[in-house]
Amino acid sequence: MKKFRDFSKWFDEVLFNAEIMDNRYPVKGFSVYKAWGARISRKITSMLEEQLEATGHDPMLFPVVISEEDFQKEAEHIAGFSAEVFWITHAGKRRLQKRMLLRPTSETAMYPMFTYWIRSHADLPLRIFQSVCVYRYETKATRPLFRMREFLWNEAHTAHKNWEAAEKQVETALKIYNAVFERLGLSYYVLKRPDFDKFAGAEYSIAFDAWNPDGKVNQIGTVHNLGENFAQAFGITYEDMDGTHRNVTQTCYGLGISRTLAAVIAQHGDDHGLILPPEIAPVQVVVIPIPYKGAEEKIAAYAKEVYEKIKAAGLRVHLDDGDKTPGEKYYYWEMLGVPVRAEVGPRDLNERQVTLSERTTLKRSTVAFDETVSAIERLFQKITTELAERSRLTLKKMTVDAKETETLKKAIKERKIARICWCEDESCAEKIKEETGGEIRGHRVDTEEKPESPCIVCGKKAEKVVYVARAY
Amino acid sequence: MKKFRDFSKWFDEVLFNAEIMDNRYPVKGFSVYKAWGARISRKITSMLEEQLEATGHDPMLFPVVISEEDFQKEAEHIAGFSAEVFWITHAGKRRLQKRMLLRPTSETAMYPMFTYWIRSHADLPLRIFQSVCVYRYETKATRPLFRMREFLWNEAHTAHKNWEAAEKQVETALKIYNAVFERLGLSYYVLKRPDFDKFAGAEYSIAFDAWNPDGKVNQIGTVHNLGENFAQAFGITYEDMDGTHRNVTQTCYGLGISRTLAAVIAQHGDDHGLILPPEIAPVQVVVIPIPYKGAEEKIAAYAKEVYEKIKAAGLRVHLDDGDKTPGEKYYYWEMLGVPVRAEVGPRDLNERQVTLSERTTLKRSTVAFDETVSAIERLFQKITTELAERSRLTLKKMTVDAKETETLKKAIKERKIARICWCEDESCAEKIKEETGGEIRGHRVDTEEKPESPCIVCGKKAEKVVYVARAY
Repeated sequence: MKKFRDFSKWFDEVLFNAEIMDNRYPVKGFSVYKAWGARISRKITSMLEEQLEATGHDPMLFPVVISEEDFQKEAEHIAGFSAEVFWITHAGKRRLQKRMLLRPTSETAMYPMFTYWIRSHADLPLRIFQSVCVYRYETKATRPLFRMREFLWNEAHTAHKNWEAAEKQVETALKIYNAVFERLGLSYYVLKRPDFDKFAGAEYSIAFDAWNPDGKVNQIGTVHNLGENFAQAFGITYEDMDGTHRNVTQTCYGLGISRTLAAVIAQHGDDHGLILPPEIAPVQVVVIPIPYKGAEEKIAAYAKEVYEKIKAAGLRVHLDDGDKTPGEKYYYWEMLGVPVRAEVGPRDLNERQVTLSERTTLKRSTVAFDETVSAIERLFQKITTELAERSRLTLKKMTVDAKETETLKKAIKERKIARICWCEDESCAEKIKEETGGEIRGHRVDTEEKPESPCIVCGKKAEKVVYVARAY
Repeated sequence: MKKFRDFSKWFDEVLFNAEIMDNRYPVKGFSVYKAWGARISRKITSMLEEQLEATGHDPMLFPVVISEEDFQKEAEHIAGFSAEVFWITHAGKRRLQKRMLLRPTSETAMYPMFTYWIRSHADLPLRIFQSVCVYRYETKATRPLFRMREFLWNEAHTAHKNWEAAEKQVETALKIYNAVFERLGLSYYVLKRPDFDKFAGAEYSIAFDAWNPDGKVNQIGTVHNLGENFAQAFGITYEDMDGTHRNVTQTCYGLGISRTLAAVIAQHGDDHGLILPPEIAPVQVVVIPIPYKGAEEKIAAYAKEVYEKIKAAGLRVHLDDGDKTPGEKYYYWEMLGVPVRAEVGPRDLNERQVTLSERTTLKRSTVAFDETVSAIERLFQKITTELAERSRLTLKKMTVDAKETETLKKAIKERKIARICWCEDESCAEKIKEETGGEIRGHRVDTEEKPESPCIVCGKKAEKVVYVARAY
């Protein structure tokens, strides 16, 4: 498949032809979400927001600008982000007395406010989220959706009485993200990052690495236990039942909407274009009349009837009664990834049936008019399952065990994800990076994997089974 | 009512106590939307977006940054906005080769892309929108929701073959905005702005000025016919049926979500706090058990039953079974503006009834358990109508005719909106501003009003009946 042979080219073409994004915006690293991309992004965002609200998170909206003073309060955080923040220094013709930065992430926008909102144990837990764009001056080559200087994400931030409560929140966060990614049919590893690769200011970080056709894993979500680091820096304390004042313990987690959209495109798409899981498809069914000489009007009327029936059932359906040929219409809607096509031709009219085509397999089947909606709903189920299953198998095939450096090198070169044993020494990780280009992404937290061979680099006792891959 | 006596204080208190916004964010002009404010804003946004999509507008998302070069292409536009744009000049430690600005509005972000998307008459009309924050360095005193340096809005931009088609689009835009504002029960004047007050780069501007308790009108939406001004500056042309290349004619319109929220609060609220139209209330009904000694459990169980019944009907309902007293709960939910309260006490339990309280009038009534949902739905209707009616009457009372300058001065001083006759000469408008503090906001486009007396300033023949008020 072309997407595996030349991913970069395939991806750019799909983004353009499926009207996801237009990369000709005149500022480097910034792109325009066209209607189809904007609609899918919204659906992914809503899916996540519903889960967050159902688990006690409140929506809020914080400013895009952060004061330099607040940004600099947490030492590791500033060290991690200062090289990539955009600075606002002027307004109109004036130089600002205090320059401000665009949020690269919102800890330092939110936590000054937490000090007002958290006074006593009764104010805890505090759980909030926002869906916004964040800004990072990436110096590596930018890539549409994968690595942008502006990207869409949802970030949640919580505060708790103690470490145990924060640990439970981390579990909840992992469940929420898993639920969303699974509904999208994505496959990925849930990895605890090595210490040297954790979020700037966190105690530890857990990340969701989705597979990508070019072998470079795509971090679509991260969950961090911040411990008391930010509480200490910002002075976020609460009065406990016994009257003592304590630091809160915090967690935060971010799900990249842009990157999740990239994963949906990259994992499910094929040479015909996008394939969208029915749940997030802006149009779930497209009805296309196939005109036949002399029966044009009857077919048009019947197509309208089919459309109305599907619409009445609450499905997102579009009737394409435009001037193009049926073939051109097929091509267009396949490119856009609409899960089911309903064709209505002379034979369908005569037999009072509908021909349904599945976007995953492009298989056709006919159903009686009265059965149309239930047949489509069954196809939605089937397509959702097929997409998830295909993706799961690809991740499995893409993952290889490596016990020697040569095997590892070959694996990375062949765009695989390698599973290796590692002593947890950073210098061994650096050697791997140098020699293979792959990075140690961490060990799985959803299942226990015990090392059964020594460290692939130094040969000493291995502490962890870890995954190595190139990464976006 | 306090909101009319000391609006500024009343408004600040409601914003804080009803958890709309927290103004303690450490950057001037930027505030935090808390959960209640964020949820209401979202509902207003969705209401508008649905209308836009239903009338053929596509959602898109453009970058927050605009290149200096594009910003400077339309002469009047840059003259109008250059004093109030925020400039990004650095990233990390580097000075950027080309500085960028934060969008104060998105014409100059969008129209460079229009040149790629519009080639022939078949690409027209183009109709798109986005819901985003925009950034303006206001030098006047900032006011939460009314005048912020960051505010939420929705902007739509369209391109057409000719002036006539653009004029039709202006009508459609007015209809869409009227529909949204009417559903929110708001009252306002729809005014064509005097030439000297039109949008920078427009042929003309029509604005929605909502009344405010302090007499300063609140511009909640604007619709502009841009003519060919931007098409000329950006080179947006299309090939017509006859092969000739022509400039497109454009319109754009913006609805301030923050300002619309301010209008909802200011027009409908009372001394108990917010009053929300049921359609946008995050919680439409709150169920409050009134415990009675010995019957606590039975009452709690019955309250739960009431809650479940309302929830099953698809209404947004919350059961407040917390530890506070019923009185404290009443106070809290009245402040938040929840339209209907369902009280469940010992008598309600015994009679298998529910006591409903309306937030508008604070009147109570009892209904049989089985009638609860239909009674609530009737109350929603009643409340929606009452809010709109109250607001309409206030605008009527607030508007006075002035035929002499003294009457006008008095009207403005007394926080009224004055209707006057004007010769259309800018110098007369300036005199009015100087002498009264009021601005000529324009003449009505939804109805024809013929001047029946001479210009209030110069005494010459009046051309228009216009409205004068102080403004945000």
